[in-house]
Amino acid sequence: MSGNTFGVLFAVTNFGESHGPAIGCVIDGCPPGMALCEADIQPDLDRRRPGTSRHVTQRREEDKVEILSGVHEGKTTGTPICLLIRNTDQRSKDYGDIARTFRPGHADFTYLQKYGLRDPRGGGRSSARLTAPMVAAGAVAKKWLKEKYGTTFRGCMQQLGDVPIPFESWDHVPNNPFFAPIADVAHLEAYMDSLRKAGDSCGARIRVSASGVPVGLGEPLFDKLDADIAWAMMGINAVKGVEIGAGFASVTQRGSVHGDSLTPQGFATNNAGGTLGGISTGQDLEVSIAIKPTSSILTPRDTVDIEGQSTQVVTKGRHDPCVGIRATPIAEAMLALVVIEHALRQRAQNGDVVPPVPIESSFL
Amino acid sequence: MSGNTFGVLFAVTNFGESHGPAIGCVIDGCPPGMALCEADIQPDLDRRRPGTSRHVTQRREEDKVEILSGVHEGKTTGTPICLLIRNTDQRSKDYGDIARTFRPGHADFTYLQKYGLRDPRGGGRSSARLTAPMVAAGAVAKKWLKEKYGTTFRGCMQQLGDVPIPFESWDHVPNNPFFAPIADVAHLEAYMDSLRKAGDSCGARIRVSASGVPVGLGEPLFDKLDADIAWAMMGINAVKGVEIGAGFASVTQRGSVHGDSLTPQGFATNNAGGTLGGISTGQDLEVSIAIKPTSSILTPRDTVDIEGQSTQVVTKGRHDPCVGIRATPIAEAMLALVVIEHALRQRAQNGDVVPPVPIESSFL
Amino acid sequence: MSGNTFGVLFAVTNFGESHGPAIGCVIDGCPPGMALCEADIQPDLDRRRPGTSRHVTQRREEDKVEILSGVHEGKTTGTPICLLIRNTDQRSKDYGDIARTFRPGHADFTYLQKYGLRDPRGGGRSSARLTAPMVAAGAVAKKWLKEKYGTTFRGCMQQLGDVPIPFESWDHVPNNPFFAPIADVAHLEAYMDSLRKAGDSCGARIRVSASGVPVGLGEPLFDKLDADIAWAMMGINAVKGVEIGAGFASVTQRGSVHGDSLTPQGFATNNAGGTLGGISTGQDLEVSIAIKPTSSILTPRDTVDIEGQSTQVVTKGRHDPCVGIRATPIAEAMLALVVIEHALRQRAQNGDVVPPVPIESSFL
Amino acid sequence: MSGNTFGVLFAVTNFGESHGPAIGCVIDGCPPGMALCEADIQPDLDRRRPGTSRHVTQRREEDKVEILSGVHEGKTTGTPICLLIRNTDQRSKDYGDIARTFRPGHADFTYLQKYGLRDPRGGGRSSARLTAPMVAAGAVAKKWLKEKYGTTFRGCMQQLGDVPIPFESWDHVPNNPFFAPIADVAHLEAYMDSLRKAGDSCGARIRVSASGVPVGLGEPLFDKLDADIAWAMMGINAVKGVEIGAGFASVTQRGSVHGDSLTPQGFATNNAGGTLGGISTGQDLEVSIAIKPTSSILTPRDTVDIEGQSTQVVTKGRHDPCVGIRATPIAEAMLALVVIEHALRQRAQNGDVVPPVPIESSFL
Repeated sequence: MSGNTFGVLFAVTNFGESHGPAIGCVIDGCPPGMALCEADIQPDLDRRRPGTSRHVTQRREEDKVEILSGVHEGKTTGTPICLLIRNTDQRSKDYGDIARTFRPGHADFTYLQKYGLRDPRGGGRSSARLTAPMVAAGAVAKKWLKEKYGTTFRGCMQQLGDVPIPFESWDHVPNNPFFAPIADVAHLEAYMDSLRKAGDSCGARIRVSASGVPVGLGEPLFDKLDADIAWAMMGINAVKGVEIGAGFASVTQRGSVHGDSLTPQGFATNNAGGTLGGISTGQDLEVSIAIKPTSSILTPRDTVDIEGQSTQVVTKGRHDPCVGIRATPIAEAMLALVVIEHALRQRAQNGDVVPPVPIESSFL
Repeated sequence: MSGNTFGVLFAVTNFGESHGPAIGCVIDGCPPGMALCEADIQPDLDRRRPGTSRHVTQRREEDKVEILSGVHEGKTTGTPICLLIRNTDQRSKDYGDIARTFRPGHADFTYLQKYGLRDPRGGGRSSARLTAPMVAAGAVAKKWLKEKYGTTFRGCMQQLGDVPIPFESWDHVPNNPFFAPIADVAHLEAYMDSLRKAGDSCGARIRVSASGVPVGLGEPLFDKLDADIAWAMMGINAVKGVEIGAGFASVTQRGSVHGDSLTPQGFATNNAGGTLGGISTGQDLEVSIAIKPTSSILTPRDTVDIEGQSTQVVTKGRHDPCVGIRATPIAEAMLALVVIEHALRQRAQNGDVVPPVPIESSFL
Repeated sequence: MSGNTFGVLFAVTNFGESHGPAIGCVIDGCPPGMALCEADIQPDLDRRRPGTSRHVTQRREEDKVEILSGVHEGKTTGTPICLLIRNTDQRSKDYGDIARTFRPGHADFTYLQKYGLRDPRGGGRSSARLTAPMVAAGAVAKKWLKEKYGTTFRGCMQQLGDVPIPFESWDHVPNNPFFAPIADVAHLEAYMDSLRKAGDSCGARIRVSASGVPVGLGEPLFDKLDADIAWAMMGINAVKGVEIGAGFASVTQRGSVHGDSLTPQGFATNNAGGTLGGISTGQDLEVSIAIKPTSSILTPRDTVDIEGQSTQVVTKGRHDPCVGIRATPIAEAMLALVVIEHALRQRAQNGDVVPPVPIESSFL
Repeated sequence: MSGNTFGVLFAVTNFGESHGPAIGCVIDGCPPGMALCEADIQPDLDRRRPGTSRHVTQRREEDKVEILSGVHEGKTTGTPICLLIRNTDQRSKDYGDIARTFRPGHADFTYLQKYGLRDPRGGGRSSARLTAPMVAAGAVAKKWLKEKYGTTFRGCMQQLGDVPIPFESWDHVPNNPFFAPIADVAHLEAYMDSLRKAGDSCGARIRVSASGVPVGLGEPLFDKLDADIAWAMMGINAVKGVEIGAGFASVTQRGSVHGDSLTPQGFATNNAGGTLGGISTGQDLEVSIAIKPTSSILTPRDTVDIEGQSTQVVTKGRHDPCVGIRATPIAEAMLALVVIEHALRQRAQNGDVVPPVPIESSFL
């Protein structure tokens, strides 16, 4: 209820602060009998890890994950899986100033007003560092979904600040620090270099999708698959907008265009983004999210201090000038966690149902 | 877990089908001692009611709400409030055809694949008619929030299909069937008339906002206030996108522009849309949603039948050519339900906290 | 969260008051495709119904159940099933006195202190009448469990006030108003007659059991099958104690006696009562509960009024002199609701597991 | 949902296995601003710790607790508190035999049948060692309840196998290894010595109570305070029965005796055990539980092996001959966790209610 557990049947409880001794999560509800070791989880953590290019925070964290429970002789036992990641490169002194002032656009202010006190070191609990345990949990979810249903997840950057990024190929995504689906990212690097020099930050737009999603996932009224995806995505730090399928473009589409025709071979198009009535169609889930610019910047901003008096704030320390750059593996993980939750729900209530419509496959 | 309950502390369990004997909901967790009668709820239901103009479905439902429990001598008792709305104008024969085919863009297909059977009469459970009980529950939530914190909710249409609607004044909203914040809606009426003639449908963009929201609502990691709003909005039939504050526009904003400056008199701007780190700032909550065009149209569409064979479908019967027209009171209700949920959560965990920063008010 | 929903995957939300227009429940999560009509539910309601002998309350309620939603063409659709039972024989004037005083042993006092107000008519929400919707929901659960796993439920009275009732045969249970497993209940009738003449009430002990429960149901640490049974039973009005299997007798058993030996044909005994480590063994679930004497009696009792001043109270009106007499079908229903909840949970997480130990059957 | 989280508003997620690297829990929902350090938690852990007398398991664990998150500068921040306890004295080789056979009365069998595999080392997840994190979490709950409401918790042993233990004084409880409220425990020591020599085990009955509980805690229908207590107690390893107040003795009480009279100075007696209608009266909560004899004993028992073949099992290794001996601090912790959960729920829904009946105090 205090917002630190994600999911109900595949429930991930997240703990830790940016500058505490460790961060981590407990996964409750993982099906038993799946082979699992740290090496299954580490690659996704490495994709999210800071310090891998000059365009992200220079904090050096190895983000090595340790499985504390729930696995015996290399297999999940069905009991809680505790994943621990030690913090190793805290420099809390960097944050002395911001303990008494509020960064415009940052959770500093609201944490203090909500709880009456806060841990200001590195943003404490509000740090995007807390997405690391979700990436770890997402890797567990991805593995199970892959083995059980053949479901796969991928994502890429669609826009970096003012720069739209056309989709060329998924193959390019792993070859650049932006998760951009293009071969040449020199202009993105130049864009980021100039932004850093200006002491400013920018936003980004990220696409994430899932293939091989079984038909029938999602609850009809409130826990619609797309509603839970929207909840998961908006829960990622700095996200301000979420679209499923055609998204806001559907406002200007006619019904005769928007509705995806069905054929014996599957759907002809995917304006729906993989859900109808909140339930998966079997098509690819297609999600796009807006990420706002980082609030921790070197440019001086007008603000107040903890006594409510006018002042200015400049944020030094180590920060991502565009948190969107590392957001792709995070969004993939969140999507995977939503899908596994609904896969388990589906077999709870509807485990005896065989989808009756025999179209060749549910997706094209 | 099967997606028919909204909220945990102020939990609204929705039941019924479009053509069953009745629809309704049970509210569990309403604080006791609040004056409540049907007349407190009916006005919002009347705003959502079908048949009030030629631009919406011609189904004639009075949507009279009946309080079955939870109120004694005119006051809430803290026990479940059951709200019942009788269906009176079902014409199930209208739907004979669609029992064997699937409307592109409609939940027909996914309901059948998920459950193995479905109630096709009027869309059954997937009908937007099921938003009526939420509007009723939302009216209860609005009343409590108004009396306790002075919180108020309002919404309006921002775009109708291809037609953007500039914001002129909240005063215009109740004076036209579109909830448009403009004085003259003749061009919107003409647009809808031509659409109906074409046997087609269109989407819409709706804005909804809340004023007088206490600071500190929302949980930090996963049940962020904005994440729960996104979940609630994406749960409304036909919604494909959700924005909070600057939304997708934040992608191209610089950090030095996006972050709202704080002053002793409150925030200088509201790009955040009323939340930072998932927690309310005390500013207005600002939400915008994309609603797709209706899938039930007279234009013939390619589809398959329940044996998976190619066919075409034309949807007769009574349908809204733009479900967005009646979406404003629905979105307001959903926003109110999210806010009351978090208001109750906040006093559960943080009931002893006095927000320490003494800025004059938390919002401008 | 306000305690009116039972279960998560098979969630039953209960509403109504003793003297309101109706009581009922909404079942969310029922698997689809099961044949269901009112006639499947009514027999259990009739077993619980008041007015069927001189030993129970003389309130005349038919307790006719009406299915308002969730069933289409005679089959469950997987959407919420609303069950409605009209109240027809309210006589609220009977309760004028108790609006201002508190019956010792009754929830009058705590409802008022908790909520600040209460509905005193017939006990309002605290009336045992609210178990009727649970019996109805339990009938749905029983039907599904019977069809899916062959699980059956039954119960009987073990003690009536001072009178122990030896177990003779299940066959006798339906043949007397006490659910007593004995052929001759004349002494029980005499006992009740004398109690009524004395203007007093008595307690009872009830046994309830389930056969054909699949092995593996129940969560290991907190939602143990026996823990959830204890929760469900203690949630029935007037229950003060719960035992599983040997119960309190296990305190004086040695480990070498208590632990049930396993054989290739199943367990040799059932001190466990059907669970080990909170997980079903496949043996019969065996539960025993203590029900306290009714607090609404003609004998004058010392108490206070709503101003806190000393007074006496005598309760007229229509009351069960032993609520335990009608408790058997209630306890069966609650047990069935716990079992179906865990059956659905089990296939959510462990749907791929085949119990590996090939003993002939899990129970003898 | 998989049963490893206790509570909703004060949610404790438990992880770990008896012979894994560590056990622990994450507390989500602790109110902020409370002073908290390891020294606040350790004393209760020390009361539960193994190896403190010859009558309990000789496993040597210091059970030192480490706070990994949720506390900043000595105060709770309102974010998740992760408590970690390292396992240091695992001797997994002791358990080689029981990996292939099932101890009668033990969860060995059901874990394997439920999950298809299990961690047999020290009982894995089913070990009573997993109560240690609950004792730690309970210490946090106790501290908050003490500071906020003056609530206190205590418990004692009422019976050890065949030996009833009369209540003399709470003062004796800390002075003997049995938590017995008597001055001289020589006969209990002799009893245990003879039991150990016999290679057998025994059960126990434990009483636990809470004083200074605010009136009004507990939900009326299903999450009754006593129902949640029953759930919590039955969730402790080896518990087979739970009583509230008069418990099973209420079966033979008359209504004119059982119902506790109210006076302007409070209730005259406490047969209710502190709850009426599932809601706290303000009197002491009084709970009694039955603990079965340990299933790990030296006496040979008939059983089957994992192929379902007849065999015998003798359990060596280090075990408590009576798990009830260390159960008192566990039961106290579980009771405290139930009370804090309901204290937070109460102010969520009923935070504006002032209990209207002005009796001098709610308890005598």
